[in-house]
Amino acid sequence: MLELSEIYRAADVLKAVARHTELIETKKINPLAHIYIKPENLQYTGSFKLRGAYYKISQLSDSEKSRGVIACSAGNHAQGVALGATHNGIKSLICLPAGAPISKVEATKGYGAEVCLVPGVYDDAYQRALELRDEHGYTFVHPFDDPKVIAGQGTIGLEILEDMPDVEAVIVPIGGGGLISGVAFTIKSLRPDVKVYGIQAQGAPSMAQSLHDGHITRLSNVSTIADGIAVKEPGVNTFEMCRKYVDDVVTVSEDEIAAAILNLIEQQKLVAEGAGAVSVAAAMFNKVPIEGKKVVCVVSGGNIDVSILNRVITRGLTKSGRNCSFTIMLYDKPGQLSAVCNVIARLGGNIISVNHERTNAGTHITGCTIRVTLETRNTQHIATILSGLKEAGYEVID
Amino acid sequence: MLELSEIYRAADVLKAVARHTELIETKKINPLAHIYIKPENLQYTGSFKLRGAYYKISQLSDSEKSRGVIACSAGNHAQGVALGATHNGIKSLICLPAGAPISKVEATKGYGAEVCLVPGVYDDAYQRALELRDEHGYTFVHPFDDPKVIAGQGTIGLEILEDMPDVEAVIVPIGGGGLISGVAFTIKSLRPDVKVYGIQAQGAPSMAQSLHDGHITRLSNVSTIADGIAVKEPGVNTFEMCRKYVDDVVTVSEDEIAAAILNLIEQQKLVAEGAGAVSVAAAMFNKVPIEGKKVVCVVSGGNIDVSILNRVITRGLTKSGRNCSFTIMLYDKPGQLSAVCNVIARLGGNIISVNHERTNAGTHITGCTIRVTLETRNTQHIATILSGLKEAGYEVID
Repeated sequence: MLELSEIYRAADVLKAVARHTELIETKKINPLAHIYIKPENLQYTGSFKLRGAYYKISQLSDSEKSRGVIACSAGNHAQGVALGATHNGIKSLICLPAGAPISKVEATKGYGAEVCLVPGVYDDAYQRALELRDEHGYTFVHPFDDPKVIAGQGTIGLEILEDMPDVEAVIVPIGGGGLISGVAFTIKSLRPDVKVYGIQAQGAPSMAQSLHDGHITRLSNVSTIADGIAVKEPGVNTFEMCRKYVDDVVTVSEDEIAAAILNLIEQQKLVAEGAGAVSVAAAMFNKVPIEGKKVVCVVSGGNIDVSILNRVITRGLTKSGRNCSFTIMLYDKPGQLSAVCNVIARLGGNIISVNHERTNAGTHITGCTIRVTLETRNTQHIATILSGLKEAGYEVID
Repeated sequence: MLELSEIYRAADVLKAVARHTELIETKKINPLAHIYIKPENLQYTGSFKLRGAYYKISQLSDSEKSRGVIACSAGNHAQGVALGATHNGIKSLICLPAGAPISKVEATKGYGAEVCLVPGVYDDAYQRALELRDEHGYTFVHPFDDPKVIAGQGTIGLEILEDMPDVEAVIVPIGGGGLISGVAFTIKSLRPDVKVYGIQAQGAPSMAQSLHDGHITRLSNVSTIADGIAVKEPGVNTFEMCRKYVDDVVTVSEDEIAAAILNLIEQQKLVAEGAGAVSVAAAMFNKVPIEGKKVVCVVSGGNIDVSILNRVITRGLTKSGRNCSFTIMLYDKPGQLSAVCNVIARLGGNIISVNHERTNAGTHITGCTIRVTLETRNTQHIATILSGLKEAGYEVID
């Protein structure tokens, strides 16, 4: 179906618009392997999607181009198609569910697309896009299950082999499977000895499940912070290509994804979205056999909503002991709160919130409880503060 | 004092250990100019400091090398010296104030330094470092006021001219002035027509003040989220070099720095520390004359504490209407809280915290107040929710 020559053609076409993202060495993801990041979060539009969308659009006939393209997406594909169409000098119309984050709507418009906000959810927007295609003769640009789109994503494989000829394994996120199909096809065609592993979120394991079942399986629901790969079923093309070219597909948990996002922020100074970080999560938590190997993790995108980023950071801070909450039982008389705050301050804890209440049914008739949240240095520091409070005679619960 | 040949020598020496960071084009910082980022946050150790420290150490005599080096820092310089010494195969001892964040202590140890935690603040650690130097004959590596250190930082200027020969202005953060002295010297020596602007935080304007006064001025205190450039006075060398080679030095506010950090996260997928983001803040808020020009902003580092990052994001979310808090007056009877929550849910607000209380002195004898915090889409969405609550008969205050 796909030929290697088409990947080279795509690479040539993409020179004009896509960044050849430079591999970044990292020593802080897994000390057992030599890990490099392919930072497609630094790609224009913030994800690899520009590659496939642009190449697809560039290959349309003049009459197709004159009618324009349509796509449906609440995320990276929308921005890729918008910029891809604009660079090709043609019109694009993107259907988005009406509740899509304003930042994504604005970004899509900013790349030159016309935006159609459809009441309802993604499926409603998808139906509307198909109706509009039929009415106006637009070309529908599929987010993953299209050989031209797959060829565009395959250029990432070429870049990896060009920049690191001695790579031994490549780890790639999987949603619908367009990215990994292109990368695996390219790498296995040129260097069949290089391993290609695909990673999904535990909450959306459609490709893993389908490969296990031996046929395409549609999941009834998917749920993960990696919204960019929350796909209910793989494509017909991508399923066949994964079956043929991918060595293994495994999943990572939500906490592992969050830890990978935090690692990329703290150690690499890179912002990845959940979907982009699953490859790093797999490397961090030894989900695939990489010990002693030279490995590239494709970080596919960085379009994470900052309020989700905030939650990921907060969770990471709590897990690493830099943030903690506990409840203290007190006698309800003046000076108690002040005394507790003194103990905490003396031990270097920084109070960020206090909730003081007297009506808790669990307390003594003369008692009350306070709930304190602190910034701390690490779990050892938390233990010091807790034992300081106990020594001072306070009862600390949970 | 410094010669251009020394910058070239430093560049040659640094090839072995420092990354030649690739310029990143960005269209979302200021539409009036063509802006590129020099991402030294992606440098090894997370900041440019490695360059100066490594070059300085590489130029020590064999007898100096055999005795090892010492430095005092709670931040980027510590990590730069640690890795610089390790790569040169020599011993390093870093004095840090005992309260330094555990992450920085661990990172410094991780690069191979011995760490000496000194009770007290930075000045105490500095004094201790000088004592240890005198006792043991270590070479003290100054964080900025040393010609070899300045020469190392100057390699950034060479890389900028090599990668973008038609650059018209370069914007550089200033703390002690080591980075800008190296960059400005290099650029003005090769291309005197290129403008070099230095940026400080409003809360730590030591170089700006000193240049204004015509002599080195020591500030009595400094306070800014850009802790990496919170320096009370410039160096003797750096002051003279800034006077000679820098076109202008201006300041940016804390809110402008926070906005720049958030812009880099959302638009560029890059994590910058406050000190690293001041150059971008200056470009965003037109602090220097860049209209129509090709400009490079040096983002000097990315070692930001994630709890500070969290606060910056929260503040940015509130400012852009994606987070809001308000207080509602209610009659104190069953069902009221539920009714309010229903209105908010119907209008698409996502409640993240509720504080319900009856003892507020300002309420009616039969009343109570609830304080609600929501995730919202934008300021328009907040207005819709507030008017929805008013229409439903609730009194909303602040």
